Amino acid sequence: MKKLKRSARLVEMTQYLMSNPHTLIPLTTFAERYGAAKSSISEDLGIIKEVCESEGTGELLTLAGAAGGVKFIPKCSKERALELIEELCNELQQPDRMLPGGYYYLTDILGQPGLMNEIGRMFASVFADHEIDCVMTVETKGIPIAYATAAHLNLPVVLVRRDHVVTEGSAVSINYVSGSQKSIHTMTLARRALKERSRVLVVDDFMRAGGTINGMIELLKEFNATVAGVGVLVESKDVTNDERLLHDYVSLMRVGTIDTRTRQMSVKPGNLFDKNMEFGTEEA
Amino acid sequence: MKKLKRSARLVEMTQYLMSNPHTLIPLTTFAERYGAAKSSISEDLGIIKEVCESEGTGELLTLAGAAGGVKFIPKCSKERALELIEELCNELQQPDRMLPGGYYYLTDILGQPGLMNEIGRMFASVFADHEIDCVMTVETKGIPIAYATAAHLNLPVVLVRRDHVVTEGSAVSINYVSGSQKSIHTMTLARRALKERSRVLVVDDFMRAGGTINGMIELLKEFNATVAGVGVLVESKDVTNDERLLHDYVSLMRVGTIDTRTRQMSVKPGNLFDKNMEFGTEEA
Repeated sequence: MKKLKRSARLVEMTQYLMSNPHTLIPLTTFAERYGAAKSSISEDLGIIKEVCESEGTGELLTLAGAAGGVKFIPKCSKERALELIEELCNELQQPDRMLPGGYYYLTDILGQPGLMNEIGRMFASVFADHEIDCVMTVETKGIPIAYATAAHLNLPVVLVRRDHVVTEGSAVSINYVSGSQKSIHTMTLARRALKERSRVLVVDDFMRAGGTINGMIELLKEFNATVAGVGVLVESKDVTNDERLLHDYVSLMRVGTIDTRTRQMSVKPGNLFDKNMEFGTEEA
Repeated sequence: MKKLKRSARLVEMTQYLMSNPHTLIPLTTFAERYGAAKSSISEDLGIIKEVCESEGTGELLTLAGAAGGVKFIPKCSKERALELIEELCNELQQPDRMLPGGYYYLTDILGQPGLMNEIGRMFASVFADHEIDCVMTVETKGIPIAYATAAHLNLPVVLVRRDHVVTEGSAVSINYVSGSQKSIHTMTLARRALKERSRVLVVDDFMRAGGTINGMIELLKEFNATVAGVGVLVESKDVTNDERLLHDYVSLMRVGTIDTRTRQMSVKPGNLFDKNMEFGTEEA
């Protein structure tokens, strides 16, 4: 136990709460840690709560009673999210991102941990009130998004492999049809990687028709698990409604049809920013 | 500009600094943000600095002069690191982690973002004073470690692929020999993924003889890039000194020879915890 002044206590509690999101912390933990009265701790939490809520960085939930305590829920205000996404849309519209065959270079964006952290915070904000047991993605590019989202939600990540990897023990494989390329692929998940009846948030970096995500949803059925939500960083509008395999998802950006001759394309904020899309409860 | 009381300012500054590690922030940024005198901001930073240093969560560097400001360097005290690593060693010694063929189940450990975050903080602590331009790993399992490390160092991640992926443009491939399995593999890096003459921190989840990491080092030469350091979560001692391809690295854990019959093995803290291994400058 160490005695700290209020100012030092506030700094330490802020660090502690930010490092332990979505975790119930009994007030006695703080009271004992700092040798302070619960009433002082409550006052401190009031100050932190006010700052988080006015900044839109998160909510501080207080649960009363013997099993009570405080829980920090990281959030991102819609305003701040839109600002960041609009910057990113501009960046993605650069013609030098176009690769032969209508492919699209996203790797440098996905390689920025700070940015991925913000993206994860957006998804964590959207899905904060859903009952979720884990965050799932398929290798490789969705991995940083899955980890960033899961970190803010304090959940484990379940990683679907594209091959059967010998180091994971017995596994379930399924074949799925990529909706846009009409080709058949395999994905595999280790038996011990996912508990039966889990509620799973599925995320990925890019979605055209939704074949890959649909594949993951098929795989979930093999584990009697259910989809708690779907989030994609970029969705392509270069697909007809008939071709689209998935309709219930949250996207942060939308790319239009790519003109491979003029290398022109448009990138706009995704359906998260449509009308009354739910976005946590916090606004700066 | 918003006027905030010191208590609220401390909470907000702490959040801001934690969200922007290894980033120089001019004092005027804070002064203008809060409509406070620079002297008050300096006092606030003094309080934050004291808490970070006594907790071992980081250092707050103050750079004087016109181009000056403050920089938060996340750290992990050696004491705290050892505590966490010893817990993890215990966890990894469980016999049900053994898979047929002497393989080893690490996936659930790697699937915990909070834990990966702590692991990344340890590497960021060790390599905080090195000149590094980016963190590199090869897909798949090292990815969360690379992102967590890079996030704390405020650096981009460069991901080496095991196949040539069409969506990344022109690329360099090399073949390398896995030292333990004596088999030949390929790894590929997109030309635009790494700038020439970069200084690169290489990380991975597991190392036996070091063939995979050596492969990455070979690949770096193709980009005239250099190795700024190597970090692995687990090293296997199940290799002779002659077989070992790499000698200069930091490991957090060491596994001994696995007895496939009794399923017994030992897992111990890695060379980071040996004698006078450098570990940032902070101790709680």
